[in-house]
Amino acid sequence: MSVPVTLRVIGIGPGGPEHVTFAAADAMVGVDAFLFLDKGSAKQSLLDARREILDRYAPQGYRMIEIADPPRDRNPADYAAEVRRWHSARASAIEQVLLEDVGEGGVAAFLVWGDPALYDSTLRIVDDLTARGVLAPEVTVIPGVTSISALTAAHRIPLNRIGEPIHITTGRLLASTPDGASGNQVVMLDSYLTFTETADPDDEIWWGAYVGTADEILISGRVADVAEEIAETRSRARESIGWLMDVYLLRKNTRSPDLGE
Amino acid sequence: MSVPVTLRVIGIGPGGPEHVTFAAADAMVGVDAFLFLDKGSAKQSLLDARREILDRYAPQGYRMIEIADPPRDRNPADYAAEVRRWHSARASAIEQVLLEDVGEGGVAAFLVWGDPALYDSTLRIVDDLTARGVLAPEVTVIPGVTSISALTAAHRIPLNRIGEPIHITTGRLLASTPDGASGNQVVMLDSYLTFTETADPDDEIWWGAYVGTADEILISGRVADVAEEIAETRSRARESIGWLMDVYLLRKNTRSPDLGE
Repeated sequence: MSVPVTLRVIGIGPGGPEHVTFAAADAMVGVDAFLFLDKGSAKQSLLDARREILDRYAPQGYRMIEIADPPRDRNPADYAAEVRRWHSARASAIEQVLLEDVGEGGVAAFLVWGDPALYDSTLRIVDDLTARGVLAPEVTVIPGVTSISALTAAHRIPLNRIGEPIHITTGRLLASTPDGASGNQVVMLDSYLTFTETADPDDEIWWGAYVGTADEILISGRVADVAEEIAETRSRARESIGWLMDVYLLRKNTRSPDLGE
Repeated sequence: MSVPVTLRVIGIGPGGPEHVTFAAADAMVGVDAFLFLDKGSAKQSLLDARREILDRYAPQGYRMIEIADPPRDRNPADYAAEVRRWHSARASAIEQVLLEDVGEGGVAAFLVWGDPALYDSTLRIVDDLTARGVLAPEVTVIPGVTSISALTAAHRIPLNRIGEPIHITTGRLLASTPDGASGNQVVMLDSYLTFTETADPDDEIWWGAYVGTADEILISGRVADVAEEIAETRSRARESIGWLMDVYLLRKNTRSPDLGE
């Protein structure tokens, strides 16, 4: 028999406690344990930021459990397969914590930056957990404000021009976006400022680091005018804060011909 | 001399008051007038839903001003030009209200469904207002939870498979999405269930109407299996509720070859 447990996957927005929704705050109440899987250079900062959020919205007290992250090959031959193997190892570690520290009928929660649907692995981990059959999780997902919305709000711009589509991609895949989809590209998870290789000098960029937080940095302009400033600002920020989280919108200076202009 | 005025463009999420952020609720305080531009069959419902939100988050009282929407050609020869003309007419009507009912140094706010950056015209109207030069608006944008996040949260799914890009488009443009961008498509503003013409029978769809509200309806499955059910459910809902707001995610059953699988 599978062990019943409740899992809340809570989107907490881009960082600042003020971008948390009332639904997310409500979901932080009545939780037996908050599970954390952070790693790397941002780990302590991200833990502290979530503690600030919990201090505010779960003032009656809370329990945090850190789960050590299994090792991962960052440059595997088969990228997707390695990610899946790594997720499965994480699922196994989480299963053990749920069985031992949360227990039958207990409630555990994950606080996810931004929105749980967007380049976050928690929902995949939960699927892996369910597929293992040891636990029978009842899952609730609370949507959150994305870093994309925080970026555009900070720059006070729409994501697209009238009627145009929007393409959300990663630094790794940016170069393979087909022409007809490249009018408005949001780039996430880009460690190498890939736009400096793919964009035209006349394309426009709206860049932001730590968007929606007190450390927010914004730069925008023609790619040819601001690429160097972004690269330098980025290096300095990584140096002084110890980690970096950024996102940007790239807009072609030309409209696609099928849009009537 | 331009007349200074503060404009708050507040994303209030997909509908339910619980999806409002604390930043959005804070921004509803100290507002001289909330401006509304609703029209059509959903007008009364959308006004009522915002009134419910204001009752909750601005309990000290608030003033709502409805601004009549100028007429619009829905099938113009030049789509983008007609939309721009219509926005300019709206800007003129809003300018008048700001001058007469809000006044110098006053604070006005727009409550925008979802997030202000995503297929919403408020920010463009604000740009038009500023460009006219009569007012000198100081603009703040509060990001909100999108209907896309509400859709995926309700279905408890990620937007994409590992590492894949995401394409956000409209019913009107769905057929012109290039192959390399069509793996995960979110379709908004689709009055005609365009996927029934563009999708393969084996593609998967996650559809939702009134997502994030008490009226939420969800259907998912293989396109061949659920297309008819979606069409019927949609007609019935439009009939009984009087208007319809839906969104869907379409996923190709095949992965792009460059992703290693």
